[in-house]
Amino acid sequence: MLVERPSGMPTAACWSVREEPVAEPGPGEILVRVGAISIDPAMRRWVHEGRYGVPAVEIGGVMRALAIGTVVESKHADFAEGNTVRGMLGVQDYACVGGSDVEKVSLSSHGLSAHLGVLGESGATAYFGMIDIGRPRSGETVVVSGAAGGVGCVAAVIAKIKGCRVFGIAGGPDKSRFLVEELGLDGAIDYKNDDVPSALDDCCPGGIDLFFDNVGGDVLDAVLPRLTPGQGARVVICGAISQYNNPDEVRGPSNYMSLVVCRARMEGFLVYDYRDRHAEADRELGRWLSTGELKSWETVIAGGVERFPEALIDLYSGANIGKLVVELVAAE
Amino acid sequence: MLVERPSGMPTAACWSVREEPVAEPGPGEILVRVGAISIDPAMRRWVHEGRYGVPAVEIGGVMRALAIGTVVESKHADFAEGNTVRGMLGVQDYACVGGSDVEKVSLSSHGLSAHLGVLGESGATAYFGMIDIGRPRSGETVVVSGAAGGVGCVAAVIAKIKGCRVFGIAGGPDKSRFLVEELGLDGAIDYKNDDVPSALDDCCPGGIDLFFDNVGGDVLDAVLPRLTPGQGARVVICGAISQYNNPDEVRGPSNYMSLVVCRARMEGFLVYDYRDRHAEADRELGRWLSTGELKSWETVIAGGVERFPEALIDLYSGANIGKLVVELVAAE
Repeated sequence: MLVERPSGMPTAACWSVREEPVAEPGPGEILVRVGAISIDPAMRRWVHEGRYGVPAVEIGGVMRALAIGTVVESKHADFAEGNTVRGMLGVQDYACVGGSDVEKVSLSSHGLSAHLGVLGESGATAYFGMIDIGRPRSGETVVVSGAAGGVGCVAAVIAKIKGCRVFGIAGGPDKSRFLVEELGLDGAIDYKNDDVPSALDDCCPGGIDLFFDNVGGDVLDAVLPRLTPGQGARVVICGAISQYNNPDEVRGPSNYMSLVVCRARMEGFLVYDYRDRHAEADRELGRWLSTGELKSWETVIAGGVERFPEALIDLYSGANIGKLVVELVAAE
Repeated sequence: MLVERPSGMPTAACWSVREEPVAEPGPGEILVRVGAISIDPAMRRWVHEGRYGVPAVEIGGVMRALAIGTVVESKHADFAEGNTVRGMLGVQDYACVGGSDVEKVSLSSHGLSAHLGVLGESGATAYFGMIDIGRPRSGETVVVSGAAGGVGCVAAVIAKIKGCRVFGIAGGPDKSRFLVEELGLDGAIDYKNDDVPSALDDCCPGGIDLFFDNVGGDVLDAVLPRLTPGQGARVVICGAISQYNNPDEVRGPSNYMSLVVCRARMEGFLVYDYRDRHAEADRELGRWLSTGELKSWETVIAGGVERFPEALIDLYSGANIGKLVVELVAAE
């Protein structure tokens, strides 16, 4: 449960573990044994009062989280014991929720955590952000920031599949290797060790046609003046992880006037708007998984709910490669 | 001529007047008697070294300016004495230029200055920015900043003609009156005296579908969180006059993540990309002028080239209503 709102980077002291009896589902409710918890950049917003128009998690309340688990008791006609369900189950071992709060998931051979990653919200975010907003065209030069993260790696690979030259930006040599060797990108920029502007000049001498941004801040400012002028360059704003823990005002992109000089557009989207097309994303992503073009890249932290704060701090410090999940392993 | 690069707001000391014999046109050149000079926000960029990728005016060089005038001597087959021409003639009484540096203008009944304003680049900027990038739909709520300026007033009226509810942002009660009484807008926000965020809430309770921005800074940040969510809201970046004289780094829009929350796009454009469609803009704008839906709103400073610095400072301090031009009146 949340015990203290972080100012700046969250610390372990912001959450504590509380033990209490497992709730008894009422009529129309189901009891779910949570199996895996998605660790997402948005969590920082959920604990910050009112900053983004999302209601904040209350002090003393269960930490909000997208998670997946198994129905162990059902008082809802649409759910049976043993069903796999996904929804805002929270950082807890058991969640007692209404039937409309979760969706049933047909488990693939990829396991629970994949249904939080490439076959879950992260994959759908990458899919709709890249396909619908980014619209990559074969031969274009694409840059993805946060490219080793849960959304970024899927977005980057989709652009490769669509025939683009794709460069990923991530932090550290391990991630650079991952981007090139595992994802098959055309190059990697290590923002912790490379000079990003000159590395972009080297990788993309003809300009950047499409930028998929998970990061914001300096990285966004480095890309904007390098958009290909006059060719309908696009900047897809997916996230701004560099700014979420910024205790001051979010830093806006100083170079936004490059949108004028380059005649480019910057566009945001929310995956929630595509709910009625999730089947399409699942089908396409599933197909690429089956051909091996895409994989379910994951960093799994196994243990109990007490590992959540550490996992979230890992996420913001960039420790994960691929989708970060906490897999709940029964302590008994 | 430019004698000193301004740091921050330009001062009169940045330019001085030099007298020299009128040049003799060589083969393929024409000599133009300049009649009116367009005073444009972009001028600040032209005197700042390399800031925007535009080559800067050299120290000791004639100040760059779009202007209109009459051919007094021609050594180019396509031009005859008496032709009216428009181009980068500079802040000078006579310009000796190549034939490809200017375009011939068919003078309308609206006079020289109108061909720098509503029938010139300002009008075309408003037309293509509003029609092509903004795409106003009847019934939508549109906000225009810098709405009393040369581009803004035309953009705002085009949105009215297209059936939108249009609100203008400008500085001071005179401009507010102009926006409502002269332009026929649905309301005006005086950024010097009103609280812009709450005024926007009052004017646009259902959200802003389209924002045409000439200003940047606080005004842009006030609009972004008020875009209509999930309805394809657009922000057309035309200019950022609040930032051009900022001696520090341009201030980017802190609220740019509202593009995500509102699922909106922000897009830039340059009027130069629409050269082959200028006839379309002239035809449409000319038609609206003839029906009286549009007028050639202008602030004319009459005198010699020595009035240029004062005119430019007026522009940045917002003294003008409508297009600002310096009309050269022969001193003899």
